[in-house]
Amino acid sequence: MERLKKLINHIISRINANLIPMGLDIEQAIESTINSADLTRYYAYYALSIDHPIYFRFQESNLGGSYFLGKCDVDRSIIHLSDIRGDELKAKGTVVKVGGVETELYRDEVIQIINSFMIKTLVHNHSRNPEIPEYFRILNTVAMHYSNIHGTTIEGAYLGPFSTADLSVLHNCILGNFSYVQAGYLTRTSIDPGRVWIMADGKYVFDYRYPLDVLEEYISWDSNGELAGHFVEFLRGRRIDFLPVYDSLASKATIPVPESAFLSRYAVIKGDCVLRPNTLVAQRAYIENSLLGKGSNAQENSYIVDSTLADLVVVAHGGKMVFSEIEEKVFIGFNSFLYGAQENRIKVGAGSIVMPHTIIHPDEPISIPDETLVWGYVRTQKDLATQSMPLSQFATQRNLTIGNMSFNGDGAAFVKDFQNRIEHILVANGARYNGEQDSRGHAQKTKSVSYNLFQPYLGGEKEGMFPTIIVNDN
Amino acid sequence: MERLKKLINHIISRINANLIPMGLDIEQAIESTINSADLTRYYAYYALSIDHPIYFRFQESNLGGSYFLGKCDVDRSIIHLSDIRGDELKAKGTVVKVGGVETELYRDEVIQIINSFMIKTLVHNHSRNPEIPEYFRILNTVAMHYSNIHGTTIEGAYLGPFSTADLSVLHNCILGNFSYVQAGYLTRTSIDPGRVWIMADGKYVFDYRYPLDVLEEYISWDSNGELAGHFVEFLRGRRIDFLPVYDSLASKATIPVPESAFLSRYAVIKGDCVLRPNTLVAQRAYIENSLLGKGSNAQENSYIVDSTLADLVVVAHGGKMVFSEIEEKVFIGFNSFLYGAQENRIKVGAGSIVMPHTIIHPDEPISIPDETLVWGYVRTQKDLATQSMPLSQFATQRNLTIGNMSFNGDGAAFVKDFQNRIEHILVANGARYNGEQDSRGHAQKTKSVSYNLFQPYLGGEKEGMFPTIIVNDN
Repeated sequence: MERLKKLINHIISRINANLIPMGLDIEQAIESTINSADLTRYYAYYALSIDHPIYFRFQESNLGGSYFLGKCDVDRSIIHLSDIRGDELKAKGTVVKVGGVETELYRDEVIQIINSFMIKTLVHNHSRNPEIPEYFRILNTVAMHYSNIHGTTIEGAYLGPFSTADLSVLHNCILGNFSYVQAGYLTRTSIDPGRVWIMADGKYVFDYRYPLDVLEEYISWDSNGELAGHFVEFLRGRRIDFLPVYDSLASKATIPVPESAFLSRYAVIKGDCVLRPNTLVAQRAYIENSLLGKGSNAQENSYIVDSTLADLVVVAHGGKMVFSEIEEKVFIGFNSFLYGAQENRIKVGAGSIVMPHTIIHPDEPISIPDETLVWGYVRTQKDLATQSMPLSQFATQRNLTIGNMSFNGDGAAFVKDFQNRIEHILVANGARYNGEQDSRGHAQKTKSVSYNLFQPYLGGEKEGMFPTIIVNDN
Repeated sequence: MERLKKLINHIISRINANLIPMGLDIEQAIESTINSADLTRYYAYYALSIDHPIYFRFQESNLGGSYFLGKCDVDRSIIHLSDIRGDELKAKGTVVKVGGVETELYRDEVIQIINSFMIKTLVHNHSRNPEIPEYFRILNTVAMHYSNIHGTTIEGAYLGPFSTADLSVLHNCILGNFSYVQAGYLTRTSIDPGRVWIMADGKYVFDYRYPLDVLEEYISWDSNGELAGHFVEFLRGRRIDFLPVYDSLASKATIPVPESAFLSRYAVIKGDCVLRPNTLVAQRAYIENSLLGKGSNAQENSYIVDSTLADLVVVAHGGKMVFSEIEEKVFIGFNSFLYGAQENRIKVGAGSIVMPHTIIHPDEPISIPDETLVWGYVRTQKDLATQSMPLSQFATQRNLTIGNMSFNGDGAAFVKDFQNRIEHILVANGARYNGEQDSRGHAQKTKSVSYNLFQPYLGGEKEGMFPTIIVNDN
């Protein structure tokens, strides 16, 4: 394992060179997170698809348990049990606007990951990097458990567990546990744990902060350096259901899958489940005793248990729900946690937006009206008074402080941006598919996919290292 | 599938350019053998090992169901359900003697397969090509079901089903069904079906010919262009046992495997089986209700059913036996078929050599004494009079015609060469392992192996084609 140790030290040095000046030494976090046995235990896999250009280059890295789709170049990194999804990368010839100037991509965008450490991380979408739009770059970065890197160029950053970097460019930033940031360009900034911060250049700022004592119940480090709290307990209990999924090669959907729908063979389907047309269930999604209405989708690391989704519901990456009834065209944001129970059900009305990183953990049945914006931490129906607002009312706001949330700017633009994004997600995922070729989305495109499994050396000084692999479409 | 069709036409044209002048048009044979659905159905896999240098390059090919170990470069070929085993390739620095002159390999030997079509073929050992000993080359060649290419450079050749090209260099040759050739350099030669021909430059010639009507019962083409006869019936009935082996990723040996033994996770173990120390069971071997004594090995495509192997028994590639009792240090040659039955058992005495392509299909119990050379077609004990001879007696022969076999040359050298080769095989496979590092063979070396699975495009014009893949050890 000499080579692997050398690699770990190399990554630590490159990341610390960025973060120690900001007061964070990540050596201990990485050392205590890496279990050497785990680094050889899992295979990595990439999808070969006829709808996405193919290019993979993996060198001097450990990629155990990770999934790659779309063009990707990895160098000197450890990417563990993560999803690197490049099915929304920009194509050659795409025109992007940088500083008001239009420029054309001279080649297909490539995800480029260098000197980085990721565990159970989701990377998706495409880069907002104006310097070189051909690269979706993740450089000298640590991304911890269930963090999301979504359309965000990241250099010299630390992402805490369950944190999300969304549609941004981050340079030397620290994202605390379960923090969410969507803030354009950000340099040398620390985001507190449990902060949900959306800043659209000059248009609006949304800022919510979880009470730290509440946050600790859901996500914290215990004295052994292990993750603790409701989030990981919830996930831990369900991990075992993924074992047969990864141990078998035969693709054997246990439920009928409509022609226009996609059920990843790397998803878990348990109990009585129904998938309607145009639904999409991504790899590492977990569906148990639930129904997904037409065009609804369950993204990576989403858990839908004992729940019903009407049509066109989006469950974003890491969205989790139990005993929930979700009505038409509801958006469940990144890493939201709707932790209902048999006697304390959750109902979300049509057209509502559950903001990223919302926790609804009811002590009583909770019902959210149609067309509502919900955020923060909700335990009772009464909590909604300070953690939600009708979309129409929010659209009229310019300055608002309510509970732990403050909003400044154009409320209408905020609502409109969100709704546009949800529609974009629906279209991209194929929810609007009508049989026409140009209405196809991921659910329809991901049909002819083969999965390719690759592994590290299992012994000797290179134990845990993957060989150099180049896959080219030509 | 446009690209795949183009590839098939390309291969046919290159092979026919060589073989039509010899009176063989392989277009029909290839077209009727290729089932388009099969070409996308199976994954290919390569082994990543710490004991063999790693280099794979696959381009413009279909490799469905095939296994690769060791350095290999494939270009514009269809390699279907085949084993390309480069664990005996010559290493950089090895000195070879060519025309009496010693020369050193300037780099590791690579198996190079170009413009060729193979189905269920075994490629093993290393090249005897004096022109460029760095390449084990298979060029413009068709190798049909269960053919063996063993240490043989092949250019512009056709190998019929169950034929074997052994330790030779063949240029523009046709090997009939179930023929075996070991003949140094051979150009523009047709080998009749069922001929077993060993010619060692100036030392000896062994020549056996199966009666063609007998051969038809075992291997022939039926009127639909499908293979028929006892060989394929035997194999067909057991194919289903391999399905769970290939559908599962979990390595779950159902029997104890001694530390010094190797049981491939791609072998079938059925019923009560025992593996003693230093045994080796290769991928695609099939063991049912049988015991393998210390240091015995079962090579690719060997079938050992209701049989007992004493210590140091070699079952070469494609060797098959039912209800057989094999005593110590017996050699069962390539594609031999010991088709015993409950009431018609076969016993082979210690130190005996069952020649490649021998068929023992008893109408009564058959017992072969110790230290016997056996060849040809044996149905009764009496048949042994013309199909076997004590090794000591054979060693005294110079000219011999007996039944369908003729031998000319130095009988002692013939026996000695065979015995040396058997000892080499035992050593190479690790049968002689005694705990010392330099006594390790394949059984001990193949410990730390990971398997990497790759697949073709499953749709579109590239359906059935594999992308270019390069795997490098660095």
